[in-house]
Order: sequence, then structure tokens, then C-alpha cells
Amino acid sequence: MEKLLDPALTVKLGDRSYPIYIEQGLFANKHIFDSIKSNQKVMIITNTTIEPLYLESIKTCLKDKTNNIQSLAIPDGEQFKSLETSNTIFTSLLEQNFSRDSILIALGGGVIGDLVGFAAACYQRGIDFIQIPTTLLSQVDSSVGGKTAVNHPLGKNMIGAFYQPQSVIIDINCLSTLPAREFSAGIAEVIKYGIIFDSDFFNWLERHIEKLMALDPVSLKYAIKRCCELKAEVVERDEKEQGDRALLNLGHTFGHAIEAQMGYGNWLHGEAVSVGMLMACETAIQLGCMKDEQKVRIQQLLAKAKLPIKAPDTMPIESYMPHMMRDKKVLAGKLRLVIPIGIGQATVKQEINQEIVIKAIESCL
Amino acid sequence: MEKLLDPALTVKLGDRSYPIYIEQGLFANKHIFDSIKSNQKVMIITNTTIEPLYLESIKTCLKDKTNNIQSLAIPDGEQFKSLETSNTIFTSLLEQNFSRDSILIALGGGVIGDLVGFAAACYQRGIDFIQIPTTLLSQVDSSVGGKTAVNHPLGKNMIGAFYQPQSVIIDINCLSTLPAREFSAGIAEVIKYGIIFDSDFFNWLERHIEKLMALDPVSLKYAIKRCCELKAEVVERDEKEQGDRALLNLGHTFGHAIEAQMGYGNWLHGEAVSVGMLMACETAIQLGCMKDEQKVRIQQLLAKAKLPIKAPDTMPIESYMPHMMRDKKVLAGKLRLVIPIGIGQATVKQEINQEIVIKAIESCL
Ligand SMILES: NC(=O)c1ccc[n+]([C@@H]2O[C@H](COP(=O)([O-])OP(=O)(O)OC[C@H]3O[C@@H](n4cnc5c(N)ncnc54)[C@H](O)[C@@H]3O)[C@@H](O)[C@H]2O)c1
Ligand SMILES: NC(=O)c1ccc[n+]([C@@H]2O[C@H](COP(=O)([O-])OP(=O)(O)OC[C@H]3O[C@@H](n4cnc5c(N)ncnc54)[C@H](O)[C@@H]3O)[C@@H](O)[C@H]2O)c1
Ligand SMILES: [Zn+2]
Ligand SMILES: [Zn+2]
Repeated sequence: MEKLLDPALTVKLGDRSYPIYIEQGLFANKHIFDSIKSNQKVMIITNTTIEPLYLESIKTCLKDKTNNIQSLAIPDGEQFKSLETSNTIFTSLLEQNFSRDSILIALGGGVIGDLVGFAAACYQRGIDFIQIPTTLLSQVDSSVGGKTAVNHPLGKNMIGAFYQPQSVIIDINCLSTLPAREFSAGIAEVIKYGIIFDSDFFNWLERHIEKLMALDPVSLKYAIKRCCELKAEVVERDEKEQGDRALLNLGHTFGHAIEAQMGYGNWLHGEAVSVGMLMACETAIQLGCMKDEQKVRIQQLLAKAKLPIKAPDTMPIESYMPHMMRDKKVLAGKLRLVIPIGIGQATVKQEINQEIVIKAIESCL
Repeated sequence: MEKLLDPALTVKLGDRSYPIYIEQGLFANKHIFDSIKSNQKVMIITNTTIEPLYLESIKTCLKDKTNNIQSLAIPDGEQFKSLETSNTIFTSLLEQNFSRDSILIALGGGVIGDLVGFAAACYQRGIDFIQIPTTLLSQVDSSVGGKTAVNHPLGKNMIGAFYQPQSVIIDINCLSTLPAREFSAGIAEVIKYGIIFDSDFFNWLERHIEKLMALDPVSLKYAIKRCCELKAEVVERDEKEQGDRALLNLGHTFGHAIEAQMGYGNWLHGEAVSVGMLMACETAIQLGCMKDEQKVRIQQLLAKAKLPIKAPDTMPIESYMPHMMRDKKVLAGKLRLVIPIGIGQATVKQEINQEIVIKAIESCL
């Protein structure tokens, strides 16, 4: 008999509140589905990489609750986070008579989480869904907060909804099969939380980075939980991203320029954010918001996480600005950037002098 | 100088509240766009039938506020209320660099309103939109309440969102160009409100039906306002359609069967609902919830509105049930129907005996 589960934390959003479970071995614990109603119709949506690894365990956990289990495996890749794939999901749900009181389970990284969340938001104007994030990035970032989206050929995440899951289930064990580069990319976001919100956590990361890289479960659990807490606090304050939720974009405007220029997938998101954060740090230094030695600490921590600390050498300096000016966060043509204030705090600066920004980019070439 | 506008009513949904304006000549009153921000980017989305009739007036009203006006005309027809057309809208918005702080205007009937509302709900996870309903049906029903949707080949309105507009602008004059059959179809929904919620309004309709059919503006304004008030009250109690908002579906489960069987568009929605309501009345009579003479009054009113009161004679009785069992409102395979209780009240009945339902359908053949 497994014991009942205690959530590691709860995201408090009134009647859209939900628990986040973080443990080792959750995929063998049937209590993760205590919220599923008896014989509720369930569709597990995953991708072809994750399906052979984890689908059977999830199905086994579900079986006590319901026999109405369908599954669908999408091909692996960011290019399948599209309106077309959403439609494939809708077709499958309709063909199998899924009604409003059925539920979707997103089993995978951020691509699956964003896609399935969007499909759940739109199917019959909204049905329940559960997030089971299997990458570090999705565990500490995309599965928490209710931002769902698909891409459009003219822009990433341009079609979406704010839509909260019913619960988030994080089994730390599944990180053991994650490719090392993907793990490091997730650590970039972990470090980001320390820089923006919590110097104590940043210090803790400096002391525990080796353990994290070795997948020590106690350290992993602590880091993931702390990130989820920090993200939950922001989301609770600003669910629809009209205010300080924007701080989470530290390094992302630079990073998106790198991702877009290099072709999505060649540089992983977290890798681009790693360099982007250093560019933001350099901007901060020039604006008098950060000391050199703070940037050095950040750089060393990123390097220990096996993250790039230099911009792609094939990307010319002139390519940055055009991408950066097309960012969703650009208000009426004015460049807005998240700027760290030392370690543990950050702010949004409006109308930053472009020369300063270019100098900051150059410092990372 | 036009005078400032007073809303006919306000839909009260906390921070998603919005005004509904109902007047003659609003398309010549620039105050309808007082909520638009100076130089805000606006895209007016309409269809090719309505574009030559009303687009220029709307553009003229906008010009004082902004020069950033784009427009897009979708082909006319229910088949364009699709995910593909949504994507056409997204592409157009992205090509023209529409950001989160831009706004869409839906100028047209329920097809345009539902489609544009859905596009607004999803574009960059939600941007503002204004409803300018131009059919009677959309003025009294679809533009109020925030249900947006597109169709899927396997089912109508299967993909959508609950998403409220910023305001609803109803110019009664535009009904003068509406085809008579479409006008009658709208009256079916008007009569529906009387049956479900308000016997006084039903009595008023009996006295004013000739004036309404002659497009008398005073009567039209009163009827539209009363319907919007009644719908707003339901929506305020039950925004996400989990409770008594379902009452609005009086006659619709029967009606959808007729629409689906006859091919959407051959029987207009309101025409199918007219017959569907009579089937619901007959069910009510058999359940002891309605008197014969009440059904006769309803039938006479529908007939005066030039609405069908007999089912399509090419539709065999066996064709009803399969369609009705696929309705979105069917819970776990059990037939639920909205049943009028006399005139002015209605209720949802679960697990109605199928024989009674079939007898009710037969009474309308
Ligand atoms: N919604 C949000 O708030 C938010 C935040 C950040 C990022 N995102 C989105 O998240 C996406 C990126 O997410 P991601 O980094 O998780 O990428 P991903 O989902 O593409 O996963 C990365 C790779 O790892 C594989 N994988 C996943 N779990 C695995 C496991 N346990 N073992 C082995 N392989 C595994 C996947 O199949 C994939 O090949 C982007 O689309 C981004 O836009 C969303
Ligand atoms: N969202 C909701 O709550 C809700 C409620 C009821 C119906 N609906 C939806 O509404 C749609 C039906 O709406 P509808 O009945 O308005 O149909 P419609 O939008 O197709 O309009 C009917 C016809 O009238 C034309 N037209 C519109 N205004 C005109 C005008 N002023 N002058 C001349 N021609 C005009 C249109 O071009 C079209 O040919 C359906 O898709 C239905 O699902 C939604
Ligand atoms: Zn990120
Ligand atoms: Zn209707």
C-alpha cells in the first residue's frame, strides 16, 4: 500500500488552484491520480520518444481509477507544437466521443505540455488536464503557471491560452533518461530563478551544482521545489502576465534572438537563455545595477552546469536587434529588457539605449 | 456633436464586465469607440456580404481614435467558422505585426462573432475584441455571454473558449438589410427567452409580433434589450455553463438533430429551434409540465414570426435519436433535455424516457 500523497506545494489561484507533487518514484504510485473520477475518460498525450519509456507505468497507475484510457503519441519535436497537431488531438478526441467531463494528461517536456494544455483549453471550450512534465525545464518552468501555446510559422507561442492544469506530477526519476544537454538547458532556468528572486537559493546552487549535475535526488527535489515555489508566487501575483511575471523573461529577449537566428532546436532554449542572461548581466553592469564579480559568479555557475557562456560565433552582431525588436514584450516599438539588480533581484527597464545593449552583446562574443 | 453613449445594460462579470449599446444609428456615432485607445492597432474582421454594407461606416467612426485600421473579409458561410480560418486571421495579424495591445472588431452575424471571438481569445493568449453583431440572432444571443468557437468536421462548436468582449455595439438599423428568413430565425431565439424566463415578455411579444416583423425600431430596441438582459443574468450566474446556463438550450437538442440531418444551412438554426421548442413543449405536456393551450400560444407566435412549426417532412423519425445522443450536453450517455414549465420557466430533466421523446417528435411531423 502506498501512502497518500502530500503536495510539495499548491499554486493558489482561487478556484483554479492546484497541487504540485514532487517525489521520486511517482510513476509507480497510483495515488497520483486520486483526483481522477471513477471511470472518467482519459487521454494520455505524449511523444514517440517518451511513449516507450513511461506510458505503461502511467497507464498502470490509472487502471485502478478508470478503464477508459486512450493514448496518442505525437512525433517528437518543436515543429509539432502547432495548430495542425492540436487539430489532430481534437479529431482523435471527437472520434472517440470524448465529452466535456473527460480529461487529458500531458506526458512529456514543454512541447507536449504547451500543446496539450492548449488543446485542453479549447476542446469543447475547456476540459481538465494534468501535467506530467518529464524534462527539467518543464518541471521548473513550463508546467507551472498555465501558459499554454502552439507556434505559428510566423512566430513562436503566438497562439495560446492562459489555462491552469488540475495538478502537476513530477517524478524526479524520469530525469535519468533525459539527454545531458537537455538537463543542462533546464538548469539554466533554475539558475535564472536564483538571479531574479532569491540570492540564498543562488548561493545554495553554487554549493550544490555538482550534486545536481550528478542527479542527486535530494538536491534535485529541493531545487525543483524551490523553482516551483518562486514561479507559483509570481503567477499568483500576476496570472495573465500583465506585470512582474515579465521578470521571468530574464535573458530571454537575447536568447530568443539566438534561437531564431540559429534555427530553433540547434541551440536549445536553455542554452540560448544562458548566454542571454550573461548579456543581460553585462547590460546591468553598464547601467550600474550589477558588479563585475557578480557576473563572474553567474558565469562560473553556468559553466559548471555545462552551459554555453559565449554567443554562437556564426551569429553576426547585426543580427540581434532585428530579432529583439520583434519580441512579444516589445511595447510599441520600444525595447524593454529584464535587468538583474545584483543577484536575487531584477527589474524591467524601458527604452534602454541601444548602444548599451549592443556593447553587452559584444562582450559575450 | 453626438452625445456620449449610455449603455442599454452592462454584463456584470467582475473585471470582465462590459457594456452593451443598443440604438438606431450607432454606426454613425463615433462614441461607440470611446474605449479604443489613441492610435491603438485595430483589425475589423467581417465577411464579404457585410463588408460593402457597413465596413466604411465603421472605419469612419474609428478614424477619430486611430489611423491604425486594417480589415479582413472572410467568405460568407458557416463552413468558414473553422480552425483554418482562425489561422488565416492569425497570419494576417502576425504579418501586420499586431501585438498584445491591439484589438479586433467582429462585424457580422454569429459566424463572424464566434470566429473572431475565438481568434481574439487565442492570439498571443488573448487580446481585446469588440462585438458588432449585425443579425438579430447574434444581437440577442451569440454576441452576449462570451461563448466563442469554431467548428470541426466532426462537430459544431467543438473548439472554442469562454472569452468576453470589451463591448457589444448593436445598431438596430442594420437589420433592415438582413434577409427576412434570417430575421425570423432570430425571432425564434427571442421567443425562446420568453418561454424560459419571462411570461410578461412572452405576453408582450404576442402583442408586438406584427410590429417586430415590420422592424418597428421602438419594439425592436425593447425586445433586443430584454433578451440581452435575460441572457446577461444567466451568464452572470453561470459564466462557464456548468449550471442553469443550460436552460438557454431549450429546443436546441431537437433542433441540432434537424440541422445535422438536413445539412447545416438548409434549415437555419432558428428555424430548427422553432420546431425543436415545440417538441420540447410536447415533451413537457406529456410530463405534465405544460398545458395544451400554452403550447398552442407558442405555436401561434412562432407561426406569426414566419417560422416553421412542423419538422422537415424528409426527415424520418429514426434519425432523431442518434443525433440527439451525440449532443454536447449528453452526460455519460443519458439524455438530458430542457423542458419548459408552462410559459416563463424551464428546467433540465435527466434521463427522460425515450418513448416520450419519440412521441413528442411525432407530434410535430
Ligand atoms: N508554458 C510555459 O510557461 C513555457 C515556459 C518555458 C518553455 N516553454 C516551452 O517548452 C518547450 C521546451 O520544453 P522542453 O525543453 O521540455 O523541450 P521538449 O519538450 O522538446 O523536450 C526536449 C527533448 O527531451 C525529450 N524528453 C523529454 N522527457 C524525456 C525523458 N524523461 N527522457 C528522455 N527524453 C525526454 C523530448 O522527447 C525532446 O526530444 C518550448 O516549446 C517552449 O516554448 C513553455
Ligand atoms: N456564441 C454563442 O453563444 C452562440 C449562440 C447562438 C448561435 N451561435 C452561432 O452563431 C452562428 C449563427 O449566427 P447567425 O444566425 O448570425 O448567422 P450568420 O453569421 O451566418 O449570418 C446569417 C447571414 O446573414 C448575413 N448578414 C449578417 N448580417 C447582415 C446584415 N445586417 N445585412 C445583410 N446580411 C447580413 C450573413 O452574411 C449571413 O449570410 C452559428 O455559427 C452559431 O453556432 C453562437
Ligand atoms: Zn525559458
Ligand atoms: Zn440558438
